[in-house]
Amino acid sequence: SGGSGGTMASESEAQRALQYEQTLMYGRYTQDLGTFAKDEAARLRLQEGDTPQPRHPSELLEYTQGRCAPCRVCALQCQRFLISKVGEDWVFLILLGLVMALVSWAMDFAIATCLQAQKWMYGGLDTNVLLQYMAWVTYPTVLITFSAGFTQILAPQAVGSGIPEMKTILRGVVLKEYLTLKTFVAKVIGLTCALGSGMPLGKEGPFVHIASMCAALLSRFLSLFGGFYENEARNIEMLAAACAVGVGCCFAAPIGGVLFSIEVTSTFFAVRNYWRGFFAATFSAFIFRVLAVWNKDEETITALFKTRFRLDFPFDLQELPAFAVIGIASGFGGALFVYLNRKIVQFMRRQKTINRFLMKKRLLFPALVTLVISTLTFPPGFGQFMAGQLTQKDTLVTLFDNQTWAKQGISDEFEYLGILEAWHHPRSNVFVTLVVFILMKFWMSALATTIPVPCGAFMPVFVIGAAFGRLVGESMAAWFPDGIHTDSNIYRIVPGGYAVVGAAALSGAVTHTVSTAVIVFELTGQISHILPVMIAVILANAVAQSLQPSLYDSIIRIKKLPYLPELGWGHHEKYNVRVEDIMVRDIRYVTLNCKYRDLQQVLHSTKMKNLPLVESAESMILLGSIERTQVGALLSSQLSPQRRLLTLRQKVLSEDGHRLSDSSIRFQISTETSSGTPARPALRKPLKPALKRVPSSPADSPPVGSADHTGIALKSLFCANAATEPTEGCSNTPLLQEEMILGDKMTPAEILEWEEQQLDQLVDFSSAKIDPAPFQLVEHTSLHKTHTIFSLLGLDHAFVTSIGRLVGMVSLKELRKAIEGSLTGKGVKVRPPLASFRDSTASTTEADTTALRQLWDRHQHHHMPREAGPGGDDDDDTPK
Amino acid sequence: SGGSGGTMASESEAQRALQYEQTLMYGRYTQDLGTFAKDEAARLRLQEGDTPQPRHPSELLEYTQGRCAPCRVCALQCQRFLISKVGEDWVFLILLGLVMALVSWAMDFAIATCLQAQKWMYGGLDTNVLLQYMAWVTYPTVLITFSAGFTQILAPQAVGSGIPEMKTILRGVVLKEYLTLKTFVAKVIGLTCALGSGMPLGKEGPFVHIASMCAALLSRFLSLFGGFYENEARNIEMLAAACAVGVGCCFAAPIGGVLFSIEVTSTFFAVRNYWRGFFAATFSAFIFRVLAVWNKDEETITALFKTRFRLDFPFDLQELPAFAVIGIASGFGGALFVYLNRKIVQFMRRQKTINRFLMKKRLLFPALVTLVISTLTFPPGFGQFMAGQLTQKDTLVTLFDNQTWAKQGISDEFEYLGILEAWHHPRSNVFVTLVVFILMKFWMSALATTIPVPCGAFMPVFVIGAAFGRLVGESMAAWFPDGIHTDSNIYRIVPGGYAVVGAAALSGAVTHTVSTAVIVFELTGQISHILPVMIAVILANAVAQSLQPSLYDSIIRIKKLPYLPELGWGHHEKYNVRVEDIMVRDIRYVTLNCKYRDLQQVLHSTKMKNLPLVESAESMILLGSIERTQVGALLSSQLSPQRRLLTLRQKVLSEDGHRLSDSSIRFQISTETSSGTPARPALRKPLKPALKRVPSSPADSPPVGSADHTGIALKSLFCANAATEPTEGCSNTPLLQEEMILGDKMTPAEILEWEEQQLDQLVDFSSAKIDPAPFQLVEHTSLHKTHTIFSLLGLDHAFVTSIGRLVGMVSLKELRKAIEGSLTGKGVKVRPPLASFRDSTASTTEADTTALRQLWDRHQHHHMPREAGPGGDDDDDTPK
Repeated sequence: SGGSGGTMASESEAQRALQYEQTLMYGRYTQDLGTFAKDEAARLRLQEGDTPQPRHPSELLEYTQGRCAPCRVCALQCQRFLISKVGEDWVFLILLGLVMALVSWAMDFAIATCLQAQKWMYGGLDTNVLLQYMAWVTYPTVLITFSAGFTQILAPQAVGSGIPEMKTILRGVVLKEYLTLKTFVAKVIGLTCALGSGMPLGKEGPFVHIASMCAALLSRFLSLFGGFYENEARNIEMLAAACAVGVGCCFAAPIGGVLFSIEVTSTFFAVRNYWRGFFAATFSAFIFRVLAVWNKDEETITALFKTRFRLDFPFDLQELPAFAVIGIASGFGGALFVYLNRKIVQFMRRQKTINRFLMKKRLLFPALVTLVISTLTFPPGFGQFMAGQLTQKDTLVTLFDNQTWAKQGISDEFEYLGILEAWHHPRSNVFVTLVVFILMKFWMSALATTIPVPCGAFMPVFVIGAAFGRLVGESMAAWFPDGIHTDSNIYRIVPGGYAVVGAAALSGAVTHTVSTAVIVFELTGQISHILPVMIAVILANAVAQSLQPSLYDSIIRIKKLPYLPELGWGHHEKYNVRVEDIMVRDIRYVTLNCKYRDLQQVLHSTKMKNLPLVESAESMILLGSIERTQVGALLSSQLSPQRRLLTLRQKVLSEDGHRLSDSSIRFQISTETSSGTPARPALRKPLKPALKRVPSSPADSPPVGSADHTGIALKSLFCANAATEPTEGCSNTPLLQEEMILGDKMTPAEILEWEEQQLDQLVDFSSAKIDPAPFQLVEHTSLHKTHTIFSLLGLDHAFVTSIGRLVGMVSLKELRKAIEGSLTGKGVKVRPPLASFRDSTASTTEADTTALRQLWDRHQHHHMPREAGPGGDDDDDTPK
Repeated sequence: SGGSGGTMASESEAQRALQYEQTLMYGRYTQDLGTFAKDEAARLRLQEGDTPQPRHPSELLEYTQGRCAPCRVCALQCQRFLISKVGEDWVFLILLGLVMALVSWAMDFAIATCLQAQKWMYGGLDTNVLLQYMAWVTYPTVLITFSAGFTQILAPQAVGSGIPEMKTILRGVVLKEYLTLKTFVAKVIGLTCALGSGMPLGKEGPFVHIASMCAALLSRFLSLFGGFYENEARNIEMLAAACAVGVGCCFAAPIGGVLFSIEVTSTFFAVRNYWRGFFAATFSAFIFRVLAVWNKDEETITALFKTRFRLDFPFDLQELPAFAVIGIASGFGGALFVYLNRKIVQFMRRQKTINRFLMKKRLLFPALVTLVISTLTFPPGFGQFMAGQLTQKDTLVTLFDNQTWAKQGISDEFEYLGILEAWHHPRSNVFVTLVVFILMKFWMSALATTIPVPCGAFMPVFVIGAAFGRLVGESMAAWFPDGIHTDSNIYRIVPGGYAVVGAAALSGAVTHTVSTAVIVFELTGQISHILPVMIAVILANAVAQSLQPSLYDSIIRIKKLPYLPELGWGHHEKYNVRVEDIMVRDIRYVTLNCKYRDLQQVLHSTKMKNLPLVESAESMILLGSIERTQVGALLSSQLSPQRRLLTLRQKVLSEDGHRLSDSSIRFQISTETSSGTPARPALRKPLKPALKRVPSSPADSPPVGSADHTGIALKSLFCANAATEPTEGCSNTPLLQEEMILGDKMTPAEILEWEEQQLDQLVDFSSAKIDPAPFQLVEHTSLHKTHTIFSLLGLDHAFVTSIGRLVGMVSLKELRKAIEGSLTGKGVKVRPPLASFRDSTASTTEADTTALRQLWDRHQHHHMPREAGPGGDDDDDTPK
């Protein structure tokens, strides 16, 4: 009877587990994706059944008995044919490229329409300045407020750039709700409105996010047809390609897109993914530009911001110092931008009074910021000194213009044509306009990107950089009216080239990338300024990287996403600090022959999410690692009312044997309702977005969910652990009480006694998930190598072992502390002075040898031949 | 007395180990660089002493008591200042860029001079065709023969491209003599001569190799000043940057250089190295182009093969199919080129008679090939139909020309100017010339690149591709004389653009890279054709990758370098095959409590280079891994004549105690000579180049080197193992005999008896190098993930464990077999049908659980509460 009850319980558990997995996909805040992927793969295999071939259409049809079954079969066959001929990845990438190109084009169209509408309104009301002002200000305010509200209501995850989150996701962390359809819709609509408002906001970052969501959704959609789109590792690869597509179709820059996405999201890059990205991004950029041709916007496929600089003599060698100055200044400027942006966010958070007010009226902050910015750019007002009437796109086109604005230093000589006129002011000159533009746009962009709407900062920064470059270029042109070149030909200075260099340099400095150089070439369709651009970008990066983290890393830190800092340049200490210097030595562990009481103690005494499982406290041989939640589950199942009922009933049955079959059936039913029902609502309830949760939150939903059928002794434990969400943890107590009353006749005292008795039993680990090969490091591993391994494999923690024995643990936290400590020159425990006396010819150190000796002795129980010699411990390494 | 003898012996051993390490640096064929780097780091730390700061100048001076000591101090202080201000990496990268730019420029100058000389000779002898022919043919033959001979004598490693070797080195394999000064000199001079001959040879590959050697040498040179240039991990990073510099300064293409080098040499790329490469390559390309300006070759910095295509309408949308055709045809052409190249090499190897003849006269083959090729390109002869008089550079310049050669289909109308005239033939038309050129150059290039001189294949292939593109372009221009565009403006077709597309596509197909697109943009200085180029390159890659390996991978396989094949595209089987399906289950191991006899048996029965060390045969808990050589060393030290002498003497001493001090001194001396002297010559002797050695050679020099002081029982073992180089292994026997006679009074029978007795002793592992954390995998790890981990960490083998127990091993061999099997659809053992019944909700499978249960039982020695239940083994996973 015990056995049959067990199988029934296991079935209901499996059922529950399945539901749990589904919520888990984006709900679990996990960093050990390896284990997760393994489980997931195992689950998929089980679902697939025992045939190694893909499912037959007929098999699938069992699940889709609807009307569209014939279509399904047809689609399946088509798809199978395509896959067999072309390969599934190709199909996926082509679809992704196509969809993203369409999305990008449609959004561009919508944004252009929005901006056109504003211009039309502004132009139509030119009789009354006040009305004009109202129209100029109201329009963006309404759009931004709508965008903020819509995003807030539909999916708050859509706020912001998305690149920091994608970087975190590609590192292996599962962020909840970041890749869903809801977020997709919120991001697309929110971004369109935000950009349509004409605020200094960008679309590059959001496009990376949109493309990733698109890939995730497409992957899910295609998995309806076949089972192979569900692999976790494959999804990560596809997400990496999607990031490239995002940048690629945003700027029609496939190469720059791939490189930018690599630099921004990856630490280690698999070259085999490189091609995927190239393919999808090229296809996407191609379709994106073809759509423009078909729409008669363009005659043929060309660059987005085509320039027409002269090819034969793009720049003189002696102009290079000016380009270098642009680079260095952009480096400082970029760092300042990141700093300013962070300070604004922190200020907004810290100011309790403002904050409380703004929190109540969530849409007030966006509206206020928009109001201020649009007031300042009002063309008849202050905007006339900063080309306020130009949209971002027009600004770039004018800045990259081929002509020199400040001819011979007298700006009036030059005839401003069309949109170029915006830069011209009768009572001022071009230099003043450019300086005002740069200064105003700088803080405006830094402020605008903190608005809680989907937006990026790349494009605003790009424009500011272009303006700065133009400023330098115009100055150079004024300084050397006939160019620097001294030979027969006169080559005038091209300020547009300086603008290109400045744009690449400043955006490179803010994002800490060098691939902005490539993006700039693809955007302008000219590569003639390659060396100035490269020099400026590298110098800007060198300066910016030594001053501030990149904008995306800054956001990652602000949002408290899990991250691993990069190793700095040329800091050789990272080769000298070793794992043993930074590891945590005093760690809790679970032994194979421990009692349930020990488990309880371990859970009470540590907050580690993964507990090492060792053979015994004496040998300390590491056997595997067990998740905290699993330990909790073991404990709770041991102390579960069901088991108590079972023992009770068995005791009753042994006294009175005739109601066997009857009672067991009733028991099963009660088990199912008690274990299944209370668990479901708790799990279905949408969890809070990951950003608001402390990453090191000790207890996740699983123990909370399983806590509802545990006994008294456990309750205190789980309520203590689930302190962050106490209502969820203990809200099920009434249910529990009820259930206990239902079939339980034991008094609380009896229960306590029974539980104490249960706690003294030895743990049966056979039902627990044990990771049989947790990642291990050796004490000697350098910080450099540890960092490499952690970022390569996306690890969260690693155990430090010495000849099989567990000696310590290193987690992301220690590593982060060590790296940031070593970079600032403090906080690192340098290795003990004695460490350098360790024998280097034999890699086994003294400690290892001693440990080995102990093991050996334990096995031998007799002396080694020459242990009696006078050599002592220090010479034992070379005992010949 | 035993103790003091021990310490003396250990000192001499340490001394020996140091020498050994130094030879080892490039001499050891090792793949587990991790361990090596660890040891190396430990050695460095020891050398540095116990202070964590860098050495003071005065400390260093102790080692340089020469005349230049003051200069040294000055240089050191300068260098320290630079490092503190700029960072050591920067200094290194700037120096590397500078040196490589100078080398590249000097070589270009020398090559141009050589080619000029040939043209001058040919032009000066225009009175007599025979003399002209003699001059035309003799000049390259002499140069190529000299190049081949010079390379052969100085450093045979300099032959060929170098990229395959660099790929192998960056994977972590140490190839001997590949990064030395001798090879550098041989490669630079050999390459200059080879390219100066005018043969269809390239310089990209060799430049990658030259830059890497430059980096290695620079690293060593700088390590004279400080100790931080010696880190192994850092060297690998610097080599990766150097590869980028090589391509960058060869084509003045920094971005393309970085990307090409990544694609060609890496599997996983650390994004933090990306910037290094960019910086060094940009600096190098900058200096390279600045030198040209200073030399008055150019007015300013521009592209190498500058094109002047129109910017406003580069191509029509309807031309894209033609570009796609170029791409697909280039894909087939590229695969054919790789196939042809391999077949030529294999044919030359297989033809015993030709081969034997050619081997005797090593320079005959290069001379013959050169003779044939230069005869065919003789301009007054057949060369007139294939523009034979043009150098590679001139050919490219003409092919990228802006004009249309075949105007209105009648080639005569066009006025050929300057070097363009070479393509014009009075009795033929441009199309014929181009077709002949393509066909002839195709086999010529494939043949020429097999000549044993330093040479690459990139540039010849690039030229052929350009010619093919030109052919298609001219055909299109003839087909649509007024262009395809139907609107008001007439935009003629630009055949030069087709040439650019063709060049990128064919070189991309041969090398399996997409970054040739970027190289092409940087080479021509125009990016207007970005979409056609990208589309053609991607299509060419898609076709070529599905037909043949890349040229570099092909060479890697021909040269039998260790490699790991890439996972194919869209083969989902790689997610379904798991480690347990491919691992070797029946592996030999060493137990902690084994006897020396067991070691001997293990060595006899397996050829594995790393043996697992387990706790005991029953528990099979993996404690670490021990190198085969270490096991050999343990055995040999146990059976060494010294130990025998020691026991003998101790026995004598115990009988007769008065000659104690005297004999011990004499003993020490004899130890030193006997252990030190025979070892040194064996190790100092330069080893054969790695290419000629079988990668799976079971025994390396270390066991051979240590075999010379072992006893009789060991000799057979080592001679058997060192079968590949038997003379080295047993040549020291006379020495051994002599030595034995010197101080040995035991008869062979006594020795045998003593050795048998020694073999029965338990092994003392304390002197052996044990890797305490060998890489472990779990049975469930997918092939995909295993491949990732192997290529990420550059692993050679990994042990498969299950909850600490050793269950199998996977080495590169198994992995290679599994991947290549899965790609061709055969040879893979699919997982057993039962495997899918494994429980998926709990990650511990049945096997794990059983193992865990066993362990647990072993510790408990009593039954679990519910093991008596009827659930059976299969239900034990969920025992509730």
